[in-house]
Amino acid sequence: MLTIAVDAMGGDHAPACVIEGTVQALQESGNRFKIILIGQAEKVQPLLAEYETKTLNLEFLHAPEVVTMEDIPATAVKTKQDSSLVKGLQLCKSKEANAFVSAGNTGAQMAASLFVLGRLPGVIRPTIYAYFPRISEGLTNIVDVGANVDCKPEHLVQFAEMLTIYQRYGAGIEKPVTGLLNIGEEEGKGSEVLKQAYKLLKEADAKGKINFIGNIEGHDILKGHATIVVCDGLVGNTILKFGESIPEFLGSLFKQSLEALVSSGKLDKQSAAVTTGMFKTMFEPFDVEKFGGVPFLGVDGISIVGHGRSSSRAIKNMIYMAEHMIEKRVNEHIAEVLNEA
Amino acid sequence: MLTIAVDAMGGDHAPACVIEGTVQALQESGNRFKIILIGQAEKVQPLLAEYETKTLNLEFLHAPEVVTMEDIPATAVKTKQDSSLVKGLQLCKSKEANAFVSAGNTGAQMAASLFVLGRLPGVIRPTIYAYFPRISEGLTNIVDVGANVDCKPEHLVQFAEMLTIYQRYGAGIEKPVTGLLNIGEEEGKGSEVLKQAYKLLKEADAKGKINFIGNIEGHDILKGHATIVVCDGLVGNTILKFGESIPEFLGSLFKQSLEALVSSGKLDKQSAAVTTGMFKTMFEPFDVEKFGGVPFLGVDGISIVGHGRSSSRAIKNMIYMAEHMIEKRVNEHIAEVLNEA
Repeated sequence: MLTIAVDAMGGDHAPACVIEGTVQALQESGNRFKIILIGQAEKVQPLLAEYETKTLNLEFLHAPEVVTMEDIPATAVKTKQDSSLVKGLQLCKSKEANAFVSAGNTGAQMAASLFVLGRLPGVIRPTIYAYFPRISEGLTNIVDVGANVDCKPEHLVQFAEMLTIYQRYGAGIEKPVTGLLNIGEEEGKGSEVLKQAYKLLKEADAKGKINFIGNIEGHDILKGHATIVVCDGLVGNTILKFGESIPEFLGSLFKQSLEALVSSGKLDKQSAAVTTGMFKTMFEPFDVEKFGGVPFLGVDGISIVGHGRSSSRAIKNMIYMAEHMIEKRVNEHIAEVLNEA
Repeated sequence: MLTIAVDAMGGDHAPACVIEGTVQALQESGNRFKIILIGQAEKVQPLLAEYETKTLNLEFLHAPEVVTMEDIPATAVKTKQDSSLVKGLQLCKSKEANAFVSAGNTGAQMAASLFVLGRLPGVIRPTIYAYFPRISEGLTNIVDVGANVDCKPEHLVQFAEMLTIYQRYGAGIEKPVTGLLNIGEEEGKGSEVLKQAYKLLKEADAKGKINFIGNIEGHDILKGHATIVVCDGLVGNTILKFGESIPEFLGSLFKQSLEALVSSGKLDKQSAAVTTGMFKTMFEPFDVEKFGGVPFLGVDGISIVGHGRSSSRAIKNMIYMAEHMIEKRVNEHIAEVLNEA
């Protein structure tokens, strides 16, 4: 049976939401896997006592230290060896757990994952991707979204290769399609790094490692012709955070406009309420919680990174994501493809 | 009286829209300035004949060649000396015109502006900014949006300095506020270029050249705390094009959702029509045509760049923008500030 280590202390609503999501995952799945919940006993135990845990495949592991959002990633891993973050990853390293899940300090989790688990053979730089909404069916992932800001062409190519494998084996996409995010469609556009990356991506395509459709531009992302959008971490992080801010921005515009219509008598209150409900559901494509989190691609183990504001539902889905990554042997496939001639 | 040279051949809807916009500007302003319309006589003259032009302060100049969207920027300026683009800029160089306006090939216009007009003293790299919607009152400009993809820290600082001057003198913003677009708020975040740019921006702030609020992130753009968002041309171009694609993306989601409500009987057709109208007006903050175009900042002359899909209204507003840039002496202020000790 698979064992998944869960960081009880990670996230804005930890440990309460993490505990709730963990219990839900075990209940909903019928104890399909075992969970080791890691955190400060004095904070986790009282909350855990509120649930009927006897029937659950759940173990608790005390970790006296906590890595906070304020901790500096590179130092946290060294100074907080007794944190839930480091202990959870060590369980993976020692094979006592098959995966680790956290919604805590992303930078610290990346640094600790790299430090404790190391890289898969052949990987230059591990990376993090994100989900993006699209007009067409299916899904779009953008990579990198902040783990690597100074990228070399060969890094970008590996991101595409790793995400192609993830999408193929982990997300069931038969033919993942890679586009290089650039300022124009034509070959030869963009920075020196992008020009070189274009050439290397074409080579990777010729070798059958990816399916490369060339340069794409900002307005192509939502169209969804590419399932994989490749860019450096600065561009990806900016687009991701910008995208996340849109529902709130438009929500406030929508609310104002609707109120003006109601107060001027052009729309009745009942219709306004129906429309407001509709507007909210419109943003379901932007709901990233259904995926919960994303695996940190390229490390020698499974470390799932969640959004700081993860709800219990997000935590539950991160646990399922961990299970999925293990079962689909995504890491084994990455190592295999990256080490082909 | 000011003279503005207008490229009749530039833009997806040229020359018809350009002619219409030019006539409107002269009519609406009561011939406040003189316009020299430049283009192929056989294409422009017949369309121009449809208007009552005798009372207008309008001159026509024949240019047998046309720079198309497909032309390579760097070569177009050399091989198409008899194009409306090059001729228009030459009128500025020889002081026969005070400004040039075009909605044609942006890259070619940049290259030609630099080649014909040269740089203002002290300018390392001319730049192009764009307008962005925001929640709060006022306006947000993002710079650079594609003219410079490989930026050094000192380029980014000059972009902020030039745009500060433009906003102060050209847009009437008393205290323009600069933010550096990055992956995190703290100093020390981001690429090596951004780390160094942060330091130089702080120095420029200390000298009173800009008002720097530090790093901002993708989700801060729409909030509008910064009136100037500084980034390299790759990030800016991507965010700009991504942003431009949002109304269409959400419009299609909105339409589908609304139709489902109507067909299920939850909303009557009349209310649906009212709501659809409201949804369209909601996107007015995204309407960049009210500005028409933007000046190419840092060249020794006024060259206004418009969107390829400019309507006659956009052309008219670009002409007003040109007039404004001349009257507010923005270029003189840029040269002055950049050459201070």
